[in-house]
Order: sequence, then C-alpha cells, then structure tokens
Amino acid sequence: MSRTSLEHHNCSLARTAEMIGDKWTLLILRDAFYGVRRFGEFKRRIGVTQAVLSNRLARLVTNGLMEKRRVEGDGLREEYRLSESGRDLFPVIVSLVQWGDRQIHAHSGPPVELFDRESLSKLDQLEVQSNAEPLAPSQVGVRPGKGANEDTIAEFERMQTRQ
Amino acid sequence: MSRTSLEHHNCSLARTAEMIGDKWTLLILRDAFYGVRRFGEFKRRIGVTQAVLSNRLARLVTNGLMEKRRVEGDGLREEYRLSESGRDLFPVIVSLVQWGDRQIHAHSGPPVELFDRESLSKLDQLEVQSNAEPLAPSQVGVRPGKGANEDTIAEFERMQTRQ
Repeated sequence: MSRTSLEHHNCSLARTAEMIGDKWTLLILRDAFYGVRRFGEFKRRIGVTQAVLSNRLARLVTNGLMEKRRVEGDGLREEYRLSESGRDLFPVIVSLVQWGDRQIHAHSGPPVELFDRESLSKLDQLEVQSNAEPLAPSQVGVRPGKGANEDTIAEFERMQTRQ
Repeated sequence: MSRTSLEHHNCSLARTAEMIGDKWTLLILRDAFYGVRRFGEFKRRIGVTQAVLSNRLARLVTNGLMEKRRVEGDGLREEYRLSESGRDLFPVIVSLVQWGDRQIHAHSGPPVELFDRESLSKLDQLEVQSNAEPLAPSQVGVRPGKGANEDTIAEFERMQTRQ
C-alpha cells in the first residue's frame, strides 16, 4: 500500500476513487460499455500509449472490474470485458457523460447520445432522489452508517460540535 | 495542452475525466458536498499533502467547479465553495458512493449514509433509466448526437461496419 493509498479510508468514495479516479481508467470503462473488447481498439480510440493502457487494464482486472479472456476466433486472441461489479458502474459513467453534456456541450449539443435500444428514446437525466423526490445537495445530510468505524463516528462528532 | 490531454476529444466523458478523473479531486468534491470549506479542513480530512491539495483546488477553480472567496469572520480567511457547475456533479459523487457501498461495503454496511434531511429517509439508488424504466447496459445504445463532429461520425460508421 503506497503512502498515498486511500484503501484504509472508511469511506466508499475513497476506495472507489482509488480504483477508478484516473482519466484513462474512466475512458477504458466508457469504451467497455460501448462494446470495445480488444487491446488495440482501446488503444486506437483512446489515443493512449501501450504502457499506460496495459497498466490501467491490469489494474482494472486486479480490482475485479474487468475480466481478461482468451477467445478463439481468427486465431487465439484476448478480450477485456466488464465483470459484474464493473457493469454496476453504469450509473457512474452515465452521470459523467450527462454532466459533460450539460456543462461542456450545452451549446453545441452532445457529441454522443445514449438511448434505449427498444424505444429509441434518450436516457433520463440521473437525479439524486429519496422516495422518488429529487433532492438538491443542500437537502441531503450525511450520518454514520452501519459500517462506520470509531474514526468515522469521531469525525462526525467533531463536525457537529463545530456547527 | 499536454500531449496526453483529452480536451480535444469530441466526447463529454473525455472532457469530464480530464477535469475530475483524479482521486484527490474526487475526495475534495465529496468533502465540499459535505460542507467542508477551508483548506486546512480538506487537508486534515483527506490526508493529502499541502502541495497536492493546492494544485487540485487551483485546478478546480480554473475549471470553474469551485470558487475561492475571502470571507470575513475571525480575521480574514479563504473559503472554497462549489460553483453551480460543481454542484451539478452531485449525481456523479452520489453514484460513486453508492457503488462503493454496494461493491466494497456490502457485508459491513456503508460507513457513511446519505439521507433526505426532511424525511430522514435514505437516498434512492441511482439507476440508468429511459422514460422512468430502468435499463441494463446491454439495453442502451450509443448514436452520434447533435454536437458530433466528422471524426465522431466516422468512428460510428467504422464501429457499425464491423458488427
């Protein structure tokens, strides 16, 4: 564990950020959702060096987000596919794309559009909700959960005392 | 623009990944949503070096995701707050936390729980949907959007020919 590793943090976002908080990793995941499977195709589409791509794919496999498989076709080749926990990142990737569409491409329109294959409708905007009611950040609170350790509880007490 | 910059990519995720695809940046954003405002408090909570924190906060300000303000209180001090486009990242941060809760802390339970301040209910799980119907990744297609440039259109044609 490196000195700057976040694995010890008692926080879901810290552990997740350690795994996918990297621009190349996010682009690989995006392309994997778009159906890209082969090393050469990731490389061409993302415009990343061989060394960086190898490193990021190996980390995705080690962290259980992608699986490397040998596939028989025209000769033997290797494919990288999302694992079940990798596929579960779909809302993360879609929320990133939608933010970019709203904040970066509001004038030009989205370069790429995601749609329901069956109805051909666009996707709904992902929205933070509780009991199906949309919530702004200021309406959302944070409290220790079931898995909170002593440090987390102490940190909450410290934040509350200050308020 | 560095050689590995993604700013030229005609893709919302590439531009977004360039801005926030960094583990420290994600932790700063999380803490900003939790109400952290001061440099020293970000530093203590995240456990990051002064140099890295300065660098990431400066990038967040340059990219328009946070604003640095001088606030009068006990003496003059500086605060960092989310801008409007920064606050719009709320679904991204919540989807990251929820993924970690599901995939990393499924057994222990979430270290931290997000809730509706009014009803005290937990947040709903963010789900990719179209017309309010949940969609799995395999049910979602990708097509060129209004802002697609020639390269994007050519890339789609290439992917379709291959299928």
